[in-house]
Amino acid sequence: MKRVFIAVLITLGMSQSAYGAQQCEPSPWGVDDEIGAANHITPESVLKAAQLVETGRTYRLGIIIDSSTPAYPPRSLSLQVVQPGQQESARPNADVTYNDDIFQGWFGIGSQLDGLGHIGRDGMYYNCNHAHDFAAIDGLKKLGIEKVPPIVARGIVLDMAGHFGVDHLAAGQHFSVADVQAVEDRQDTPVEKGDVVLFHTGWTDAKLKSDPAVWGSVEPGISEEVAAYLAEKQVVAVGADTWAVDVIPPQNADRPFPGHVLFLRDNGIFILEVMNTGPLVRDKVHEFLFVLGQARVRGAVQMIVNPIAID
Amino acid sequence: MKRVFIAVLITLGMSQSAYGAQQCEPSPWGVDDEIGAANHITPESVLKAAQLVETGRTYRLGIIIDSSTPAYPPRSLSLQVVQPGQQESARPNADVTYNDDIFQGWFGIGSQLDGLGHIGRDGMYYNCNHAHDFAAIDGLKKLGIEKVPPIVARGIVLDMAGHFGVDHLAAGQHFSVADVQAVEDRQDTPVEKGDVVLFHTGWTDAKLKSDPAVWGSVEPGISEEVAAYLAEKQVVAVGADTWAVDVIPPQNADRPFPGHVLFLRDNGIFILEVMNTGPLVRDKVHEFLFVLGQARVRGAVQMIVNPIAID
Amino acid sequence: MKRVFIAVLITLGMSQSAYGAQQCEPSPWGVDDEIGAANHITPESVLKAAQLVETGRTYRLGIIIDSSTPAYPPRSLSLQVVQPGQQESARPNADVTYNDDIFQGWFGIGSQLDGLGHIGRDGMYYNCNHAHDFAAIDGLKKLGIEKVPPIVARGIVLDMAGHFGVDHLAAGQHFSVADVQAVEDRQDTPVEKGDVVLFHTGWTDAKLKSDPAVWGSVEPGISEEVAAYLAEKQVVAVGADTWAVDVIPPQNADRPFPGHVLFLRDNGIFILEVMNTGPLVRDKVHEFLFVLGQARVRGAVQMIVNPIAID
Amino acid sequence: MKRVFIAVLITLGMSQSAYGAQQCEPSPWGVDDEIGAANHITPESVLKAAQLVETGRTYRLGIIIDSSTPAYPPRSLSLQVVQPGQQESARPNADVTYNDDIFQGWFGIGSQLDGLGHIGRDGMYYNCNHAHDFAAIDGLKKLGIEKVPPIVARGIVLDMAGHFGVDHLAAGQHFSVADVQAVEDRQDTPVEKGDVVLFHTGWTDAKLKSDPAVWGSVEPGISEEVAAYLAEKQVVAVGADTWAVDVIPPQNADRPFPGHVLFLRDNGIFILEVMNTGPLVRDKVHEFLFVLGQARVRGAVQMIVNPIAID
Repeated sequence: MKRVFIAVLITLGMSQSAYGAQQCEPSPWGVDDEIGAANHITPESVLKAAQLVETGRTYRLGIIIDSSTPAYPPRSLSLQVVQPGQQESARPNADVTYNDDIFQGWFGIGSQLDGLGHIGRDGMYYNCNHAHDFAAIDGLKKLGIEKVPPIVARGIVLDMAGHFGVDHLAAGQHFSVADVQAVEDRQDTPVEKGDVVLFHTGWTDAKLKSDPAVWGSVEPGISEEVAAYLAEKQVVAVGADTWAVDVIPPQNADRPFPGHVLFLRDNGIFILEVMNTGPLVRDKVHEFLFVLGQARVRGAVQMIVNPIAID
Repeated sequence: MKRVFIAVLITLGMSQSAYGAQQCEPSPWGVDDEIGAANHITPESVLKAAQLVETGRTYRLGIIIDSSTPAYPPRSLSLQVVQPGQQESARPNADVTYNDDIFQGWFGIGSQLDGLGHIGRDGMYYNCNHAHDFAAIDGLKKLGIEKVPPIVARGIVLDMAGHFGVDHLAAGQHFSVADVQAVEDRQDTPVEKGDVVLFHTGWTDAKLKSDPAVWGSVEPGISEEVAAYLAEKQVVAVGADTWAVDVIPPQNADRPFPGHVLFLRDNGIFILEVMNTGPLVRDKVHEFLFVLGQARVRGAVQMIVNPIAID
Repeated sequence: MKRVFIAVLITLGMSQSAYGAQQCEPSPWGVDDEIGAANHITPESVLKAAQLVETGRTYRLGIIIDSSTPAYPPRSLSLQVVQPGQQESARPNADVTYNDDIFQGWFGIGSQLDGLGHIGRDGMYYNCNHAHDFAAIDGLKKLGIEKVPPIVARGIVLDMAGHFGVDHLAAGQHFSVADVQAVEDRQDTPVEKGDVVLFHTGWTDAKLKSDPAVWGSVEPGISEEVAAYLAEKQVVAVGADTWAVDVIPPQNADRPFPGHVLFLRDNGIFILEVMNTGPLVRDKVHEFLFVLGQARVRGAVQMIVNPIAID
Repeated sequence: MKRVFIAVLITLGMSQSAYGAQQCEPSPWGVDDEIGAANHITPESVLKAAQLVETGRTYRLGIIIDSSTPAYPPRSLSLQVVQPGQQESARPNADVTYNDDIFQGWFGIGSQLDGLGHIGRDGMYYNCNHAHDFAAIDGLKKLGIEKVPPIVARGIVLDMAGHFGVDHLAAGQHFSVADVQAVEDRQDTPVEKGDVVLFHTGWTDAKLKSDPAVWGSVEPGISEEVAAYLAEKQVVAVGADTWAVDVIPPQNADRPFPGHVLFLRDNGIFILEVMNTGPLVRDKVHEFLFVLGQARVRGAVQMIVNPIAID
């Protein structure tokens, strides 16, 4: 009784993955490489970065997150503090009492490190890894966050808000290579190979508390040419005090998150989002020892982090 | 028809919380202090610690964890990697594809930082904070892990396995202050105020993979007198390559986790569990710059961490 | 250097659990009973209830819940639909594709069955079970929701809104035994032993969508005397189109949730919250066959349910 | 410096979704239908089914599940029972104490109802719904479990183990239409339009506890021709005391889960897995009133259930 019909041929096929034919760039560090630009980190580079410590002041670049922190949909989180075995003041361990905690949530909330398995193009990720081969439901089989080595490097923060003479850049406002270079010069902090480069736009200080909905839906950020410039400089990681580093809305509607694709997929450069750059800028600490050790959950794509800047 | 009866009076009341009468030690840093021994960290101490960097080699002290990692019951974890909006190769963002991840689990798994709200005695925690007042179901209202400042300090690893001339100490084996001092001397790494002190027992290298059930149920560790010795030394944190630092089973069955209570509750000293000390010891790196920035989830009790040692 | 002091003795001890001395009522069904008033259900009672089916119309008493459904703090829920193994149209099972789902949340959201282990007084629950003995972190060891047998019974809905000639009762409005009896008479549906009694207040139809914050913070409901009346009638379960059945705010501020305590703890009577009674009332179906089979998750306290009324 | 290359063209494209060209069968109940064979349920059919109640005995068809219940990978679950606000016997609600519970897990564990959005072919599901259009990460936009109406119907259990004179059928053992018809005759329970048909293979009674790993990886089940036979009979739901109803391993390796595809996708017939049919068979209750009301979580794919059989 049921009629079988042939659905109208639509042209969706055109935009779908042409897996077989896709261009990809094998890593300069070999076809098995999973750490990308972290390869730039060497004992020599670490030693040099450590010599940047001058005052001993430390800065935590991670913000505090909780269930009210705006997050890229449908990300959310929930935390519970519990006292196992101690209901109604029970004492399974003599007089020792304790609290424990349970978390349900997405790792891509607040201050976060994007691993190299986070963003790809048509299913192809860093070093020609295709989602078919590594993006398993129970954890990435390659490019997992647990692979990221200690990111210990020279860190610089480029004060773009100061450059434009504003408290914070506007949503959708992006800046050019010339702008970046002007700040490099002004601060005397040229971008160098192996650096962790952070942009201070003022966005999080200005908007996270006062207008969280706006904070999390648009933002100022790097232009496409700045992304290319930083990739050419062979930095280790790029971050900002925004939730995506890239300017949102994007310059080209058909190229969303261009910096993400260029950094993570094409160049193995890590991304650091929602970095608390304000205190560095206020103290005029534009150059520092950057240290990041992220929790090593096997197969995780990204991680909530709190890098430490040491001046 | 129902009979009402008076349950037999039992003496449980004796062992229950005598909240009102409990002794507690207010912090030397004031009644509002929430960071304990981290107060020892100053720009001066950081600067001094940074000068320990000699070779630029880095070590990650966090191990990789996953759903098979043994954990203190009933702790467990689960991770899922997903591709939101991309079911059947859908393309909500032009040709950009991405993986995201969702976590359900306890933060007290694998390499972890115990916050000051983790362990108390009869409901009383660090700085006379009672569970009633801060241990809310949706996150600690005081002593949360987000409060912990950057732990940047001199780190030392004391090679207890080497001291005893073994690959690893045995379950239940504890060591004395004399043992610790002998290692301090042998390595020329005296414990100093403000240090992060890690013990290498060889336990995790020897047992985590080969016998995870044993690894997670017993362990070698510090004796009660060593805990007191370290507290007197005013260290910032104490860690080990075991899941509890304290020797398990405990020396006194009626005093479980004595180091936990002494460090966290009585002295505001942080605890670092399941530190991957093996590579440091094998490289004879006994002294280093220790840097820890933990994810700042508001109200969390503890956190999965990956401190970085820089030699 | 640290001063030890004795905290001021406060009288909190007075209000704390006097576990040993607490009155409790052993179940008339024996000290091992875990199903309470469900003992009233017999093949005879089921057979009689089945004879109430007259038209074959069915009603689902469960409402739809999602992450926006107001819930008793800090309850919340999150759901993800995923396609395991099918990232980028991968095909692990020939051409078969599938969706799966993951849930993180509290079972006490929306339409729910309260098990007998949900509410107690000073740690003592139904049938003299103390929290110490059964309320384990990884699931109730007694009184778990999985124990509840099929609740197949005569169901009646008492139209309290109709009785008062209103669309819905007001927040805080409670009704008397006389009111209940008037409705019993008016509808010709006397409350009988073994019944499932539902109250229609109009609250959910009127407020859940239009004012969810108010809906979930106050409500009309039964008075204390109505709770006692129903307990005396030996009903199996009491429900309402509200989130707590009890009137909120309570009649006596020092006796919150009196019906909960009386039903669950003292009498083993189950509670059904957020029952979708509107359609029954609109169709004047005041008497029906009630059938509930709740998901049997071991040790769960309560369960999201969707009982079926068959007219 | 990076070489760009063109990956070898592979023929994967052939096996990938030919979305545009795929055959699909619109529902006989209209292009907007989301409830499939549940359309067969009418007041008349319910009334008739209710008349099957003869003894008043009830059976719960759901088994108890917990974290040890085998589940289709990577499904798992975790439950916590907590006492919000009551840490160390705190009393936020006078002397009222309570337990609550938190669940993290997959809904496809143990006794479960498969919704019509669960299984498709090449991304196309029931009633020509494509995954692109409805399988959102935060919940199915169509075919969600919350749409399933009360399944109140004649239920029959076909005792296949008894037919073959065994305690339980073997893994991989399937049965023919002739076998099914023989049991229909023997029991005098012909399959009729609108029925819920359950197969008793003995598998769960025999293997779930004694050999959970085997229980969850293979199973006896219906053959492809039986699936077609039942679809032709226009039943509402098909279930079994196995985790997939279909025989595993499948008869044809390139057609896994053929009954799932035929029932859910092609015919809108619901599937009931891990039904506890043993007690029915032991009591020779082969025909009964079947009642299922599943928790209505918006957008869920499937649900842990506990249907009630009333004899």
